[in-house]
Amino acid sequence: MLTTTNRQVLLAQRPDGIPQNEHFRIVETEIPPLKIGEVLVRNEWLSVEPAMRGWVNSVGNYSKPVGIGEVMRSFAAGRIVASLHPDWDVGTPVTGMFGWQEYASVPVSAISRKVGEEDLPLSTSLGVMGINGVTAHYGLLEIGQPLAGQTVVVSTAAGAVGSLVGQIAKLYGCRTIGITGGETKRQLCLNAFGYDIALDYKSPDFESQLRTACENSVDIYFDNTSGAISDTVLMQLALNARVVICGTASIPSWTPPPQGPRVERHLLVKRARMQGFVIFDHDDHEPKARADIARWLREGGLQYREDILDGIENAPDAIAGLYRGENLGKRLIRLHKGV
Amino acid sequence: MLTTTNRQVLLAQRPDGIPQNEHFRIVETEIPPLKIGEVLVRNEWLSVEPAMRGWVNSVGNYSKPVGIGEVMRSFAAGRIVASLHPDWDVGTPVTGMFGWQEYASVPVSAISRKVGEEDLPLSTSLGVMGINGVTAHYGLLEIGQPLAGQTVVVSTAAGAVGSLVGQIAKLYGCRTIGITGGETKRQLCLNAFGYDIALDYKSPDFESQLRTACENSVDIYFDNTSGAISDTVLMQLALNARVVICGTASIPSWTPPPQGPRVERHLLVKRARMQGFVIFDHDDHEPKARADIARWLREGGLQYREDILDGIENAPDAIAGLYRGENLGKRLIRLHKGV
Repeated sequence: MLTTTNRQVLLAQRPDGIPQNEHFRIVETEIPPLKIGEVLVRNEWLSVEPAMRGWVNSVGNYSKPVGIGEVMRSFAAGRIVASLHPDWDVGTPVTGMFGWQEYASVPVSAISRKVGEEDLPLSTSLGVMGINGVTAHYGLLEIGQPLAGQTVVVSTAAGAVGSLVGQIAKLYGCRTIGITGGETKRQLCLNAFGYDIALDYKSPDFESQLRTACENSVDIYFDNTSGAISDTVLMQLALNARVVICGTASIPSWTPPPQGPRVERHLLVKRARMQGFVIFDHDDHEPKARADIARWLREGGLQYREDILDGIENAPDAIAGLYRGENLGKRLIRLHKGV
Repeated sequence: MLTTTNRQVLLAQRPDGIPQNEHFRIVETEIPPLKIGEVLVRNEWLSVEPAMRGWVNSVGNYSKPVGIGEVMRSFAAGRIVASLHPDWDVGTPVTGMFGWQEYASVPVSAISRKVGEEDLPLSTSLGVMGINGVTAHYGLLEIGQPLAGQTVVVSTAAGAVGSLVGQIAKLYGCRTIGITGGETKRQLCLNAFGYDIALDYKSPDFESQLRTACENSVDIYFDNTSGAISDTVLMQLALNARVVICGTASIPSWTPPPQGPRVERHLLVKRARMQGFVIFDHDDHEPKARADIARWLREGGLQYREDILDGIENAPDAIAGLYRGENLGKRLIRLHKGV
């Protein structure tokens, strides 16, 4: 028997920079009547992404910002509980852009895919088997183009994307150096994610540690942070290096753009390439990425961590928490105990 | 009958930044005895390159700096006047790294090539048919990857490299926007080099002119300047833009690296690529580039300008003059009237 009420997290104010608790509000609403061609999804897992900062800021980004008063845009995973579309049956596990809410009445175009890997937990469809896995796979392999024996440096090395980049680089025979914040995450990098070297950027002699570890031999820098960490890594590039720009977690606001050392001369002298990407452009890469990742998971070659918050009331502060560095692994909101 | 004396331009002091007149001195020396395997080249043309700044600075560059007291490193073109190598005959026109001097006693490994295009002036082997042409061809076509209908912006648009980039982009069906300094060069861009739009960066409303011309549609930015010009162009990138880093003429010194707006977020949002290159890595590209350029020259599809200074005594100040923007076209030192 279906409930008729829904809890939703709405964007209440537009932040400049990192969205905080007070930029959202939780409301209780009626589930609207389902239209022909729609399905009703009961969300079980809501995703929390660093990229959400960009989705709610008004400028300098790659997608239309979430409107004030709208349900917060989000990947979610759940099961279809009602369907007015002949191709989508009740009970089907699905993932898609269902938003931060308990129930989503959506056209089937909002569904990213039926989750077909029944041996893997549904939550993985939002992390290692979802946007994080595809991002790591595409960014490292297609833009970074690693070769065995090369050195790969990853910032936010213990994070949902970074931890996968480090491990995929190892699977490709690279030497991996992870940069993360704090001793707990540093140990996780070494022990769970197999980095050859892991460095704490909060350490007072981080710069000299990094120089010693890198010795101008960085072939690929997978950059999730920008800022001072990147400035230090960039000085250690090898000839023909590739800098994969995946995220800018260390910069609180880009309006106006903060200043940093100019990179042009260094890119020239090192014959280096710096390239940004947005994974939503590369849907065609998803099947290959997911097939590789599922195989590595089943073979035990890929580890992942999840950071689970129970209850939708934890969502509003969850993005800010990512930027405070408090999560160990892919941050998820679990809506129902026992899923 | 050969002379036995030689005039040479030596690096007298190491500049920090742009080399000036006082960093060089001219000496008269005896031509040394020729060793087996060497040739004596009588230089007719000496090249003057913006890149020479990098060749004499001590740090942050791509080749070993010229030593104090050594002959200034330079491309030159001339004819073999004595040979102790069986493959190289007296009278052969050659180009290579012969240095800023009247005569070069060099091993044949210093020869870049025999100049075979007898219908083209020997001086072109240093410019449009030499490093400038190959640089423009490689940087635009291999790194920039232009497609017909795309917008290409070139800084130092009237310069020895920039003027060729703009014209090759037109040959590939692109819309071209040239940025240069002063009305004379702006007219040259429009009338000789066929730019669709040419802008004077010294104009008080340059930024708004550029915004109007570009309208976020810059598919390729061929960057010879870095600095404020680049900052303005970068804000006008189209999605999937390519920024070709060829030179950094607007920055007087890179020690320490000057500050500028961070590019990471913008590269990410625009899915853009910024890539440096050094043409000396791409010898294998030379034959193709030279074949294309010779064909375009003969068909009349490619214009070039030369800025000729008569006499080796003009060499010491000639690099600084490039950075003062005083040349119109490829700057050359002519050693003998009537060549």
